[in-house]
Amino acid sequence: MGGDYGPLVTIPASLQVLSAHPDLGLILVGDSVILENELAKTTYDKSRLTIQHASQQVAMDELPSQALRTKKDSSMRVAINLVKEGQAQACVSAGNTGALMATARFVLKTLPGIDRPAIISSFPTIDPNKKIRVLDLGANVDSSAENLMQFAVMGSVLASTVDNIKNPKVCLLNIGAEEMKGNEQVKQTVQLLSTMTSINYAGFVEGDVIFKGEADVVVCDGFVGNVATKAAEGIAKLIGQILKENFTHNIYSKLVALLAMPILKRVTKRIDPANYNGATFIGLQGTVIKSHGGAKVKGFACAIEEAIISAEKNVPELIKHEVELQLRKASNSQ
Amino acid sequence: MGGDYGPLVTIPASLQVLSAHPDLGLILVGDSVILENELAKTTYDKSRLTIQHASQQVAMDELPSQALRTKKDSSMRVAINLVKEGQAQACVSAGNTGALMATARFVLKTLPGIDRPAIISSFPTIDPNKKIRVLDLGANVDSSAENLMQFAVMGSVLASTVDNIKNPKVCLLNIGAEEMKGNEQVKQTVQLLSTMTSINYAGFVEGDVIFKGEADVVVCDGFVGNVATKAAEGIAKLIGQILKENFTHNIYSKLVALLAMPILKRVTKRIDPANYNGATFIGLQGTVIKSHGGAKVKGFACAIEEAIISAEKNVPELIKHEVELQLRKASNSQ
Repeated sequence: MGGDYGPLVTIPASLQVLSAHPDLGLILVGDSVILENELAKTTYDKSRLTIQHASQQVAMDELPSQALRTKKDSSMRVAINLVKEGQAQACVSAGNTGALMATARFVLKTLPGIDRPAIISSFPTIDPNKKIRVLDLGANVDSSAENLMQFAVMGSVLASTVDNIKNPKVCLLNIGAEEMKGNEQVKQTVQLLSTMTSINYAGFVEGDVIFKGEADVVVCDGFVGNVATKAAEGIAKLIGQILKENFTHNIYSKLVALLAMPILKRVTKRIDPANYNGATFIGLQGTVIKSHGGAKVKGFACAIEEAIISAEKNVPELIKHEVELQLRKASNSQ
Repeated sequence: MGGDYGPLVTIPASLQVLSAHPDLGLILVGDSVILENELAKTTYDKSRLTIQHASQQVAMDELPSQALRTKKDSSMRVAINLVKEGQAQACVSAGNTGALMATARFVLKTLPGIDRPAIISSFPTIDPNKKIRVLDLGANVDSSAENLMQFAVMGSVLASTVDNIKNPKVCLLNIGAEEMKGNEQVKQTVQLLSTMTSINYAGFVEGDVIFKGEADVVVCDGFVGNVATKAAEGIAKLIGQILKENFTHNIYSKLVALLAMPILKRVTKRIDPANYNGATFIGLQGTVIKSHGGAKVKGFACAIEEAIISAEKNVPELIKHEVELQLRKASNSQ
């Protein structure tokens, strides 16, 4: 029910992903009348696409605490309950991020050894075959060095399993590449990371280097990660607008735009946020994927694909295992 | 002597700006042999372009503390001394940022009432006639709410005097637009800013909204500002590379690129970092402008232009005056 378009986007995206994955089953959670009405317009395999009624919805601007208290039959709550009960292997939502995180955390709980879940997503790099993972994107502000270290472990597991990167390079976001730079948070975190043998810690990375793809995983505080990736999103949009403005400026530019269309489409395809849609709430005892609220069919389908991989690889279990190894190692070395 | 190109860039840029400003005088500070050799290749007005010898140079990767201690006759130190002594009204350098800031702070001192200087620069928005100012871009990490409040006052003065914006809208960078969001630093700062009548505080702004130009001044911690603006720079470069790659992909795309050249040039002009080059070290008793180390002639000329306006308007004096007013108001209300 969530996001800017609700079932108008989530249903076509679901149908699209179902046809690409013959073994997949999807449960649409929300107002059954609305969902049935939408589904009536199409034909689909009822054994693979079912409806789970939920009488409430969380508004996009609702306070997480309020949603948690008063919306016990909301579509996001019911969907996360299905994951908890093992009736679904993952939950995908385009709804209110804060409420989704609060609900996921309350219902699923964090993994043993993980203090706080984080939000991780992927971004384009100059290499078309390489994505980069950044976390945390806003689940936590004022993170401790311990939190950042846990983010590093979780990001490393996700990159190696979901993105198939062997021994992923984990970097810490900083304002310079030199050892003495950084705020207190970064300085303390680097002490922890440099001693860890289980992850491939590869030093600092600056904001402008993120998209060069030298690191596989970039770790940062949620405030910093949110602001930095949104600033990147903002300038990308601005460039898109300026390109559009100038390619529709007069008859000459409109003609050139027609000729340039296949080229511009290839460019757009490389950086289209829809291709990177689907942020994982990592560190929970279950898979929850957050789609951008403004995502359309292609973007929401991409978020479902992310959920499929995460569920198939059982990322939460792998993280749990990795953290247990770390803890055992730490207690052995004491 | 600083930056990636040294006098090969700073001298042509100086000559260019001198020819545009008949009343301007420039002093080139650095190794007089190198400077004279370069100048010998050209003709110039010796009454308006003079050389001040400095026997040392600060390396781009030198520790600020070391530069301050051991490079007392460096080009940047001598240039800042000239400002201190009133022989120059501003210093422009493409050198080591940390060393330049440490030297400027040591020689010029901060203005009364200002605890820490900040780095402020301008960025493009969707409106071609509107730039936005962001500070701090990396002079301070772990800033207090008091620091951020002082940045807000300084940014407001700079936007109103240098950018001619009446009653500039000052916003605080945050991860959401809602009142309850943010880290501790932001929450404390908003308490201070909401009570101030001398600046036009206009609430929170998110990372992706920076470039929409809704705010005139965006205030943030130096770690956050550095990472966010560099991330934006990084994605802008990536888009530029992908455009270039696709417009040189095959003969068809190369032909279209030729036709699209005037359009792409207009686009580049709007977002070319050279047009926004020149960051002000604000909060000091004197004007110091930092050029990007990689700036070429156009960019370095732009930084000199920024210095001219700042010196003409006497920004440090205006900030001093504004801060005095604030302090008087605060002591009256107690």
